[in-house]
Amino acid sequence: MKILVLGAAGMIGRKLIERLLVNGSLRGEKIEAIHAFDVVEGAFDNSGSINITTQAGDVAEKATIDRLVAARPDIIFHLAAIVSGEAEADFEKGYRINLDGTMNLFNAIIGEEGYTPRVVYASSIAVFGAPFPASIEDEFHQTPLTSYGTQKAIGELLLADYTRKGHMDGIGLRFPTIVVRPGKPNAAASGFFSNIIREPLSGKGAVLPVDKSVMHWMASPRSAVNFCIHAAELDGETIGPRRNLTLPGLAITVGEMIQALESIAGSKTAALVTHEPNETIMGIVANWPRRFIASRAEELGFSAEKTFEEIIQAHIEDELGGQLPQ
Amino acid sequence: MKILVLGAAGMIGRKLIERLLVNGSLRGEKIEAIHAFDVVEGAFDNSGSINITTQAGDVAEKATIDRLVAARPDIIFHLAAIVSGEAEADFEKGYRINLDGTMNLFNAIIGEEGYTPRVVYASSIAVFGAPFPASIEDEFHQTPLTSYGTQKAIGELLLADYTRKGHMDGIGLRFPTIVVRPGKPNAAASGFFSNIIREPLSGKGAVLPVDKSVMHWMASPRSAVNFCIHAAELDGETIGPRRNLTLPGLAITVGEMIQALESIAGSKTAALVTHEPNETIMGIVANWPRRFIASRAEELGFSAEKTFEEIIQAHIEDELGGQLPQ
Repeated sequence: MKILVLGAAGMIGRKLIERLLVNGSLRGEKIEAIHAFDVVEGAFDNSGSINITTQAGDVAEKATIDRLVAARPDIIFHLAAIVSGEAEADFEKGYRINLDGTMNLFNAIIGEEGYTPRVVYASSIAVFGAPFPASIEDEFHQTPLTSYGTQKAIGELLLADYTRKGHMDGIGLRFPTIVVRPGKPNAAASGFFSNIIREPLSGKGAVLPVDKSVMHWMASPRSAVNFCIHAAELDGETIGPRRNLTLPGLAITVGEMIQALESIAGSKTAALVTHEPNETIMGIVANWPRRFIASRAEELGFSAEKTFEEIIQAHIEDELGGQLPQ
Repeated sequence: MKILVLGAAGMIGRKLIERLLVNGSLRGEKIEAIHAFDVVEGAFDNSGSINITTQAGDVAEKATIDRLVAARPDIIFHLAAIVSGEAEADFEKGYRINLDGTMNLFNAIIGEEGYTPRVVYASSIAVFGAPFPASIEDEFHQTPLTSYGTQKAIGELLLADYTRKGHMDGIGLRFPTIVVRPGKPNAAASGFFSNIIREPLSGKGAVLPVDKSVMHWMASPRSAVNFCIHAAELDGETIGPRRNLTLPGLAITVGEMIQALESIAGSKTAALVTHEPNETIMGIVANWPRRFIASRAEELGFSAEKTFEEIIQAHIEDELGGQLPQ
């Protein structure tokens, strides 16, 4: 079993590889090698029995991707993308990385005769655009309002068609917003969803730029890794021709998030969140989906946290060594 | 007012240009020039005051499309495509013409500084894939089951995003199946919808390969031209960010089509249709949509025939000189 991860140095890529190194197998087969590709080289624990190699490069360079695919990995996780804000600010770069990069991968796979790898493709709820119903069902249309969402939606269409034609065995995953992101506070418009939990848990202040009534669709980094692994292991036949799935998540308001923080870490910690309304961010967030009914993905066995307390606990266990800092 | 038509030699392109030559104006402005581009050169009446030029070429050749766009036509009708059956049989050619061709056009427009033409893009109900609800509403998702439908859906996404970013002013039109197509019987799986009307009206036999209970979504060639012209004239502001519209049509069964034929042309004419079930065609047609509720397009002023008798009458007027052959 050989695995290729594109976007290996990103938050999900890194955590996915760490999990694969721990698990040692996928689809019931021993993992022999993982090739970790990203724009920068990741650093992974190479002390185990899995041969892990890293490479820095550009997904938009066709020859680079052709060579990666020529090694015929059994499973490809395609997580490489520039994020929504950057794709919106730099139109050309967004299309080059997020669209050309994906097309390079899929076309390289077609170029390999008799090769139909499982491809797990990271899509996003950004393929949907406002106005929304109160709950978005699996049959709601794709009308993205960002270039990032457009690029992800095009990748979904290509993945479904190439899979239908037998050129690959793809599954597209529409990730919820991933919370709590570890690391430094992030300037992305969605950054505050993580900041208001992560920073207070470390005794630091955090700014809430929107009303407490704002509801959004979230899952933990741990769930994101679970999604990737479950998608790699799923029987393709059971999925059918609709290969792109809205994943399960938790619909919760910012106010409820802060309540959960208080219930776990106390009122002093929760009080570290300061409400400073920001019209720009409020405007952006108003166009984001609030709640999905992810029936198909749930039927196919995907699952996520049911309470925000679980999401906070996952963060404490995975990032803070299982204990609240004193 | 300068107009560029890509796919000018096809059935809709030809009829559109003929109508524009008769009308002489569009959006309240006098038409000065029409450039008619297709893989073969069309033949048009050049005796009027409109300067009509023709050119044969390949939409997949970037330099060719760059030159067409450099002339900065005010309105571009992008009707160029290879049809569903051919795109399915020749995967590479389908993507080359239907996807690369569309991307060449849109990217050429971006390349022209300060140029935001109205682009009328011919999409298709093939962007939808079974299973369907009894009536498909505007918010139903895009899960095409053909490469053609995939290519059209990708064009829709690009059109919406490029328009949102101010690079062009696009409208995508999801055409119903166009019936009655003039000309020779057609081997396309959908050909029988036209054959069973056109051939009997000329005293010839026609084969019905599916059950009379089969329902489908149709409009006349005349309506197809109306759609293009209305789309060119619409105020872009009123459309909003969802730039791709399912067009109005008529949901009717094959049995009702033949009844309408009988009511107009008599029972002897209707009896020229022979039922010869064809399992292959029945299988293909079973995956096609039957009925839409095209609310948004109707609110924006698009309209089509309300009865199949009107569709037959349009054919008699436009193709048979207004009279049934004796």
